[in-house]
Amino acid sequence: MTTRLSLADCGLSAGKKARLHRILHQHGLGNGTALFLPYDQGLEHGPRDFFADPLASDPRYILKLALEGGFNGIALQIGLAEKFYWDYAGEVPLILKLNGKTEIPADNRALSPLHASVEDAVRLGADAVGYTLYVGSPAQDADFAQYRVVRQEAQRLGMPLIVWAYPRGEAIEHKGGKDSFYAVHYAARTASELGADVVKVNFPHPEKHTDVPEPYTADFSSQQAIDAVVQAANRTMVLVSGGSRAGDDVMIAKAEQSMSAGATGLIFGRNVWQRDHDESLRFVDRLREILAKYPAS
Amino acid sequence: MTTRLSLADCGLSAGKKARLHRILHQHGLGNGTALFLPYDQGLEHGPRDFFADPLASDPRYILKLALEGGFNGIALQIGLAEKFYWDYAGEVPLILKLNGKTEIPADNRALSPLHASVEDAVRLGADAVGYTLYVGSPAQDADFAQYRVVRQEAQRLGMPLIVWAYPRGEAIEHKGGKDSFYAVHYAARTASELGADVVKVNFPHPEKHTDVPEPYTADFSSQQAIDAVVQAANRTMVLVSGGSRAGDDVMIAKAEQSMSAGATGLIFGRNVWQRDHDESLRFVDRLREILAKYPAS
Amino acid sequence: MTTRLSLADCGLSAGKKARLHRILHQHGLGNGTALFLPYDQGLEHGPRDFFADPLASDPRYILKLALEGGFNGIALQIGLAEKFYWDYAGEVPLILKLNGKTEIPADNRALSPLHASVEDAVRLGADAVGYTLYVGSPAQDADFAQYRVVRQEAQRLGMPLIVWAYPRGEAIEHKGGKDSFYAVHYAARTASELGADVVKVNFPHPEKHTDVPEPYTADFSSQQAIDAVVQAANRTMVLVSGGSRAGDDVMIAKAEQSMSAGATGLIFGRNVWQRDHDESLRFVDRLREILAKYPAS
Amino acid sequence: MTTRLSLADCGLSAGKKARLHRILHQHGLGNGTALFLPYDQGLEHGPRDFFADPLASDPRYILKLALEGGFNGIALQIGLAEKFYWDYAGEVPLILKLNGKTEIPADNRALSPLHASVEDAVRLGADAVGYTLYVGSPAQDADFAQYRVVRQEAQRLGMPLIVWAYPRGEAIEHKGGKDSFYAVHYAARTASELGADVVKVNFPHPEKHTDVPEPYTADFSSQQAIDAVVQAANRTMVLVSGGSRAGDDVMIAKAEQSMSAGATGLIFGRNVWQRDHDESLRFVDRLREILAKYPAS
Amino acid sequence: MTTRLSLADCGLSAGKKARLHRILHQHGLGNGTALFLPYDQGLEHGPRDFFADPLASDPRYILKLALEGGFNGIALQIGLAEKFYWDYAGEVPLILKLNGKTEIPADNRALSPLHASVEDAVRLGADAVGYTLYVGSPAQDADFAQYRVVRQEAQRLGMPLIVWAYPRGEAIEHKGGKDSFYAVHYAARTASELGADVVKVNFPHPEKHTDVPEPYTADFSSQQAIDAVVQAANRTMVLVSGGSRAGDDVMIAKAEQSMSAGATGLIFGRNVWQRDHDESLRFVDRLREILAKYPAS
Repeated sequence: MTTRLSLADCGLSAGKKARLHRILHQHGLGNGTALFLPYDQGLEHGPRDFFADPLASDPRYILKLALEGGFNGIALQIGLAEKFYWDYAGEVPLILKLNGKTEIPADNRALSPLHASVEDAVRLGADAVGYTLYVGSPAQDADFAQYRVVRQEAQRLGMPLIVWAYPRGEAIEHKGGKDSFYAVHYAARTASELGADVVKVNFPHPEKHTDVPEPYTADFSSQQAIDAVVQAANRTMVLVSGGSRAGDDVMIAKAEQSMSAGATGLIFGRNVWQRDHDESLRFVDRLREILAKYPAS
Repeated sequence: MTTRLSLADCGLSAGKKARLHRILHQHGLGNGTALFLPYDQGLEHGPRDFFADPLASDPRYILKLALEGGFNGIALQIGLAEKFYWDYAGEVPLILKLNGKTEIPADNRALSPLHASVEDAVRLGADAVGYTLYVGSPAQDADFAQYRVVRQEAQRLGMPLIVWAYPRGEAIEHKGGKDSFYAVHYAARTASELGADVVKVNFPHPEKHTDVPEPYTADFSSQQAIDAVVQAANRTMVLVSGGSRAGDDVMIAKAEQSMSAGATGLIFGRNVWQRDHDESLRFVDRLREILAKYPAS
Repeated sequence: MTTRLSLADCGLSAGKKARLHRILHQHGLGNGTALFLPYDQGLEHGPRDFFADPLASDPRYILKLALEGGFNGIALQIGLAEKFYWDYAGEVPLILKLNGKTEIPADNRALSPLHASVEDAVRLGADAVGYTLYVGSPAQDADFAQYRVVRQEAQRLGMPLIVWAYPRGEAIEHKGGKDSFYAVHYAARTASELGADVVKVNFPHPEKHTDVPEPYTADFSSQQAIDAVVQAANRTMVLVSGGSRAGDDVMIAKAEQSMSAGATGLIFGRNVWQRDHDESLRFVDRLREILAKYPAS
Repeated sequence: MTTRLSLADCGLSAGKKARLHRILHQHGLGNGTALFLPYDQGLEHGPRDFFADPLASDPRYILKLALEGGFNGIALQIGLAEKFYWDYAGEVPLILKLNGKTEIPADNRALSPLHASVEDAVRLGADAVGYTLYVGSPAQDADFAQYRVVRQEAQRLGMPLIVWAYPRGEAIEHKGGKDSFYAVHYAARTASELGADVVKVNFPHPEKHTDVPEPYTADFSSQQAIDAVVQAANRTMVLVSGGSRAGDDVMIAKAEQSMSAGATGLIFGRNVWQRDHDESLRFVDRLREILAKYPAS
Repeated sequence: MTTRLSLADCGLSAGKKARLHRILHQHGLGNGTALFLPYDQGLEHGPRDFFADPLASDPRYILKLALEGGFNGIALQIGLAEKFYWDYAGEVPLILKLNGKTEIPADNRALSPLHASVEDAVRLGADAVGYTLYVGSPAQDADFAQYRVVRQEAQRLGMPLIVWAYPRGEAIEHKGGKDSFYAVHYAARTASELGADVVKVNFPHPEKHTDVPEPYTADFSSQQAIDAVVQAANRTMVLVSGGSRAGDDVMIAKAEQSMSAGATGLIFGRNVWQRDHDESLRFVDRLREILAKYPAS
């Protein structure tokens, strides 16, 4: 079991440290780990994600769930943040997602355009901003260009920057796919090289190794893969994403392996709210039990 | 029957609330509902739309019609606003449309370029601005980029932002088309996620479900579809568009279903002015009768 | 006993509400009241204030005291914030004092020049900014000019603005003096009229009424005076200042009367740290006992 | 043997001269030569480069190696510079790499997008900036455009500009390839014509002359080729790159020829750290022995 | 004997730390102490200061002296830096003095106007900037205003800020004078409160206590006074100024007491160069012997 990063060891400015301290030590379990609730699927996938539980279409319901479940933060796009965060302002930390897209156009040259700024996040009282970087996309020129502005503004304003590091685009599809060990490993490192304070990754699948570069064709266990991903991120904290709805025991196993690897936390959305309210909270309790076992020093 | 949003529940700043209060409570029926007259078709479709009633080619005629018909606002592009709004300034609220395009080029990568700014709207005394977002277009990168500036200026200046949320582009054509339930539902949610104060949508057609994502292949009634669209928009008020000229009873039925679903109002252009003056007003009267039945709390 | 302002009733933006929520509900007693530790005396009076307890010269000692004493925030000038806040970033809210001056030049045309900006505060992760407004100073032209920029930046960035509303200057000396009921009453209202979210005032002395305007020449009790001061501030929260070191029972009585009047809290510096460490904490305990009796609704 | 450029002969401003003086005369051998450690491969190639020695995945290990090995500077991307340079700030000069990309998308229209600015470099205390120019890429329009801004900022702020001059793209593949004499020679001259203070080139291979322009089809020795490359760069100092891991004796021979040709130094990464720690230092010692023989006047 | 501040304990950003590391650890004795050569007297006092040794009128002579004497830095105004620093760029650290004035007008409302910017310093390759703050001057409003911009630019660009904290003006003349313990103590604290990274003070004279505030009327030894001054500056490093030419033994005693109090170093100008070249170096040697006894941890 690796030790987790502590805030004092991450090379953070005072403002970034203050805001991450609030998230990691004054919410959730308060032990330096994090459980985030992402709620950007209404834009990313459209309202089809809410048919599983129509209540989940209502941002108020989700904000309340974030409070009841003891989440460390909720990630919202600008529109929902503008209209709903006031009600719970300061009660649960806000991560303002700065870019996003619909899933309608093809993904071969994926790019997630900016729709909000770090100053919007400051104005709304957010404690972090989120940026989706499509690692490996042929549109990486445009992606890096808009990312640069976000990173510099976040640095200037002391705002923690969480990068959703998602391998994507036609090239990655020919090198193992977006959740191969190769792709996730590279994505975590890219976020770290480009200055993310926190990186959100998918759980790596080392068995997907068709056409990946040489070292990744060897046999790796899941645990070895997630260990390497966390190590590659060095002083950038790692959040492991839940992804689309799957069986609870599978998710819990991923969570356990991630935390054991030294990840700082989990970011689970659909696996939480695509079910009945009480079931959601019961599942959250299982996640919290894991986090409780892996405090940051 | 859903309850309608009231201004106090929409997460609005003082300036946005003041301007929407004028629109919703000091014009039209004054009961918190809205009937808008859009008059941007001269750019969007060209003057071919005015052959049905040549008088409709004259902006003065349309402005006068807006007054006579007791509309809550009229939507104009910058040129007509500059040259005609002075005559009726303050008598009928102006919605300044900030972007638009001709229909001449192909629509597969639709993008509606900006031709005016929120400051133009302030200068002219407008009570809202309008922005056409082509949801799902392959050009969504450029669309979101120019939209971001509009949203931020509207926020800074307290100007209500009405988004014409139009599914469009080659990808949407392969997923049920622009007025499928899937497309309209997604468009309403996109506007809400991106910070529209009001969203204008087409009436959804749940029977168009070829190649749409899974939940939309089921059978839904029109009422179920429009209910879901309004719900997806949450604190963003919904206006239902009339679209191209159709039979009166069909339009009236759509209006009734929309208001019953909780929409804030209607935005009917060609169905109003592509006919003789007195007929126009008679049709408007029928719409007003519906609005009168659905006051906002 | 008046009811205290609750955050939902103060006309605050989301960012200001989020930050004040942290201060008032996630630190100190967490009951909506506040106990602040001001530590700007090293600039305002010079290090002579630290002779009473030399340890108090060390910002680390004071920051630690703020944590041990369960304060809701600590007010620092930019230099100490830059060099010392990182160590405790997020553990105790920072109020960045944006202006200040030495006491060396004469005070007849008092003006407290800006030495930091709201963006500095954002960058450092502060939860509020402080501005000293010398109400009644002949230099009020320059004062209002620099205040305007601060207020606008605070509004733009969602940063709560705490105004140290201090009657000062040769004119006020001829109208009852800086802690007369007249002066303090006027100062509280001035801060409210100019857009302070929180105002820090001295406790009013209704018996000082030489040459004050007519209504203030009547007999008022201390309680009547502080009641009026809090009422004059309306939706601006009131903090009552401890001022220079005085007897504990006198201070406790002032604190009790202030909270009974509806003040949100107390801001006590020298009365706290111009004594031995354990005595400091014992005195703080007495203040906290009072705050515990007056929760905000 | 050509004489090496001395700082006084390079047409440098005071700021550029001061910073290069530190690099060339106050670090490493201090004799005006340079040995740089590039550590941008985590982004450029991904973490696959670290499988050879997993310790090399940790930026702290590499920074320490730079100190132990007596390097004149270390080249980092912005993220690692932000989070790791503080620990060794000033102990080893930082070259902030301003652009970079992943290797995932195809390279036929290679462009290395900016992710940091010269001001970031100034802020972090770097002594130079690095920019990858893909000489000959079909995307050279975009490349020159972003390069222009970097050069102008570097000039304005007195920051030495090191250009990684890499022939790349589908056109160069049809003219001898990226390390042909033709391509490297052209790349060195391009950097010089465009205002680089220092240029990093690959060692030229005169035997690769399929489809190269006429003069390059003749027979040239390696020494003749590298002599010409250094001469083409005139007052732009030349660094020769190690490239991917190869046999030590081959590398040493390249280094010897490069210095003999008048190059200012070497920039070796993978050949240094893709091996055990003590072996790394032994190899570095061999490089230093060569540099010691070629002091700048 | 107090311990000296080490760079890691001063709350510095990477850029400030890198530049101060160069000054304190790569020049002079390299033990974390500093000996600076100020050469701004040609503006501050005029060329009358050079009559003692006419050679000292030549900036080349002084720059060479800084190198020969092993100084950690030389402080120049912009004109001499522009025209003379190139010759020695990087060989001795440059402290660019950003403000200055002639001594011709009366000093009762002293203000030292800006004549250069932090960007000038970056451009010239300086490792620190100097700013003269006239603590207690009636012109402190204007002083703080121009200081604020300097501090913010220095923070933004990672440039160490050295404040010449000089009590000055008619008010200070009535409270013990500019080198009273009261005045120097207050000046050191003011620089610290306002964000100086390093403060230059005069040696305090505790025996000057006519009309000073109460605690300063007591008897203090020189050592007690300088101890208190260094303590008041907390994480701001202290340089003690030599002031006008005085007897060597007096100066050496001051230097010894200063270093014993925990000062980081000395800044001696006229006492160095208002004498013959070899005598200058002999005197410098005596100062270096003292610094060698007080390394920073």
